[in-house]
Amino acid sequence: MNEATSPVRLLVHGASGRMGQALLRLAAERDDIAIAGAVSRRVEARVVDGIPHFAATELAGVPPFDVAIDFSLPEAFDAITQACVARDAALVSGTTGLSPGQRQALDQAAGRIPVLWASNFSLGVAVLHELVERAAAALPGWDCDIVEAHHTRKLDAPSGTALTLGEVAARGGAQARYASLRAGDIVGEHTVQFTAAGERIELIHRATSRDIFARGALHAAVRLRGRPAGHYSLRDLLD
Amino acid sequence: MNEATSPVRLLVHGASGRMGQALLRLAAERDDIAIAGAVSRRVEARVVDGIPHFAATELAGVPPFDVAIDFSLPEAFDAITQACVARDAALVSGTTGLSPGQRQALDQAAGRIPVLWASNFSLGVAVLHELVERAAAALPGWDCDIVEAHHTRKLDAPSGTALTLGEVAARGGAQARYASLRAGDIVGEHTVQFTAAGERIELIHRATSRDIFARGALHAAVRLRGRPAGHYSLRDLLD
Amino acid sequence: MNEATSPVRLLVHGASGRMGQALLRLAAERDDIAIAGAVSRRVEARVVDGIPHFAATELAGVPPFDVAIDFSLPEAFDAITQACVARDAALVSGTTGLSPGQRQALDQAAGRIPVLWASNFSLGVAVLHELVERAAAALPGWDCDIVEAHHTRKLDAPSGTALTLGEVAARGGAQARYASLRAGDIVGEHTVQFTAAGERIELIHRATSRDIFARGALHAAVRLRGRPAGHYSLRDLLD
Amino acid sequence: MNEATSPVRLLVHGASGRMGQALLRLAAERDDIAIAGAVSRRVEARVVDGIPHFAATELAGVPPFDVAIDFSLPEAFDAITQACVARDAALVSGTTGLSPGQRQALDQAAGRIPVLWASNFSLGVAVLHELVERAAAALPGWDCDIVEAHHTRKLDAPSGTALTLGEVAARGGAQARYASLRAGDIVGEHTVQFTAAGERIELIHRATSRDIFARGALHAAVRLRGRPAGHYSLRDLLD
Repeated sequence: MNEATSPVRLLVHGASGRMGQALLRLAAERDDIAIAGAVSRRVEARVVDGIPHFAATELAGVPPFDVAIDFSLPEAFDAITQACVARDAALVSGTTGLSPGQRQALDQAAGRIPVLWASNFSLGVAVLHELVERAAAALPGWDCDIVEAHHTRKLDAPSGTALTLGEVAARGGAQARYASLRAGDIVGEHTVQFTAAGERIELIHRATSRDIFARGALHAAVRLRGRPAGHYSLRDLLD
Repeated sequence: MNEATSPVRLLVHGASGRMGQALLRLAAERDDIAIAGAVSRRVEARVVDGIPHFAATELAGVPPFDVAIDFSLPEAFDAITQACVARDAALVSGTTGLSPGQRQALDQAAGRIPVLWASNFSLGVAVLHELVERAAAALPGWDCDIVEAHHTRKLDAPSGTALTLGEVAARGGAQARYASLRAGDIVGEHTVQFTAAGERIELIHRATSRDIFARGALHAAVRLRGRPAGHYSLRDLLD
Repeated sequence: MNEATSPVRLLVHGASGRMGQALLRLAAERDDIAIAGAVSRRVEARVVDGIPHFAATELAGVPPFDVAIDFSLPEAFDAITQACVARDAALVSGTTGLSPGQRQALDQAAGRIPVLWASNFSLGVAVLHELVERAAAALPGWDCDIVEAHHTRKLDAPSGTALTLGEVAARGGAQARYASLRAGDIVGEHTVQFTAAGERIELIHRATSRDIFARGALHAAVRLRGRPAGHYSLRDLLD
Repeated sequence: MNEATSPVRLLVHGASGRMGQALLRLAAERDDIAIAGAVSRRVEARVVDGIPHFAATELAGVPPFDVAIDFSLPEAFDAITQACVARDAALVSGTTGLSPGQRQALDQAAGRIPVLWASNFSLGVAVLHELVERAAAALPGWDCDIVEAHHTRKLDAPSGTALTLGEVAARGGAQARYASLRAGDIVGEHTVQFTAAGERIELIHRATSRDIFARGALHAAVRLRGRPAGHYSLRDLLD
């Protein structure tokens, strides 16, 4: 990161949602980010805490920005993608439920601007991916087990993150087995365990606050500004 | 590793010690190792379980070997180093208490043959080193804590392995704090924990048997055979 | 608990503080509690979410209540104690910094009404106390270690809770050693570990939200209603 | 335990098995036990390390003993039970695969002598049972999950110990869910986890050596001597 650069001008798209609110709150604490504007479906106040707010229909009129972070809905996705291309700004998106056509549009946008789409924006999980792949490759023949724990409202099991960790382990040559716990209000815990005779390595990620996903998106936004066009992952933007 | 190669011909130097006995026992279970001979201070039987035994004074007469594993004493170290150079064989050594002169002799030998000296031969710990360095570099600003637990007879704290993990974390940019537990007969546990707001990564190694050190030395021996002359670490020989 | 009883009428004293706000929010979700009123130093609105609010000076005029929960300041403590005695209501208090005279007044109140004062209202920690005492008594000769982790703003170490766990272990006959970690924003984690040759028991409490302290106080309030006068601890009110 | 009593005179029945060997080795290290004799199917030496050895057919002729520890086979079980009753000695048995008739015989013996039969002789596991029952009763409404890990040669899952922990939790009112891991050479790990909103208690037992089962049986033998006739469990004999 170039310490001398001016703050990244950030547009928050989907500002009224839980992630949008966390993004506005956490971005305000950082020196390396200046919030250019907040976009949501409906606008109740024009300016909140000094930040100009815009309705989705007013997207063309937002001030200049370097990066947009988008946690909105599929029906709002096309507009923000086009706006980023039109402004030559980077796009960070965690919007889920995109159609195949929208994924294709994202690929086309990646030919013009830097793009990062992810389902999990935790920095720690991104690092865990890297560590698991390395450990799996360095420990051939060790047993690999993945245990994940989440709150009781989570219905799918294993978690998407656990499955991704299993794919990463497989790239390193390990065949993972899964176990899932659903208990209390656990935000998310993932343990990847490599076991041999007489020794064991456990790689654990514990999330205790959903803020980490907003923090990861802000981290990505800062590191994406000024990169060449293309698809990026959180791992690409690690230090 | 070339699967087609013949078994590594192994000389066990310091065969009557605890590590030597473990090496003989565990090497016998492997297809990729053939024990060429066992050397110890005194020899009671010429052949044990089909393996020829030699006194230290008979080192010149041992059969051909590709690699020697040495867990002996400083006073026996010079002879095995010279024997390896004379035979153009690799040397794996865990002998501690070497004099500065002996370290220099090891450096000179490394100009002629592949040499690996280590204080901890656990493969898992070698991998942990690598993961900790990577995590420290990828997680700037996260707090780093190292907790180690060992049996109550271990007097030094933090353990040498914990200190090495701290150095490795420092290379990645993290300043580690240490905590030490001494309890029961714990073989050795090391936790390196990286913590940020809302999330945490824990990297843990648990040793439950001292056999892992012998296994790590055998692993190193197999991978060292046929390498160019030079100094190697366990990490260099990971898959 | 008598399932047929009417909801406990609760007075929240210290309603504008962080604990007071959590108490009001969490009590509203329970069927077995009806909030009779909220008392704070200054009152901005007479009714909030249907709950009547009173200034501290108006304490004599609050509606009937069965139990008061007090998380206020020492200067407000005498008034709520007297009000509870006058109304024959139970008192749950977590107010810290009481003077010796105030502690004496609390003892006198306990001669007339049920009283529970505690520094930590986590139910899980109360249960952990009990488990640790039992384990220490049942495992003579096992090593006992207590490891606690908290956020980096916590200056004292070991934590008060860790010290209390050590006292509890001592009652069971074990002499605990302590280790403390300060990292990130960890709400609070306590591990009490008993180790012997070949086996180990770990008893761990992890807090991930400060809401648990409000929940514990509400739990205590419900169970304290209708008890004989006297001093109670959270452990006394466990199921 | 009466510190003034003479050592318990112990008969080891099933002395040539893995448990029998561990019992002889570990009993020799204790001051409160004197080995009266060792019984096995076949006897190769009459005296080993000062201990008289007897064939199963010579059971009638063994020296006086206070307690017999039996880890043998169902076909040898009747003889040792009868011998204990005849000698008015206590019986500690871990022999598995008993027939219904043999279980009945054990009940009858318990009318005459103190008897302890168990499938798991770990002291730590016995204590864990007690802690889990207490925690389950004290934490109504908390989610209960049991995770167990064992070596890859263990075919049944969940482990018998995990199922017993689940029964114990059920006595306390908790309905446990299970997860099982099979990896490396793990001797045995059991985690019972109670989770609520914002907090969690984890109760963990880790076995790292099979010696703990022999130690638990010796512990039971010392505490069973001199008790009234009846059935005992390890939990009954905890301090």
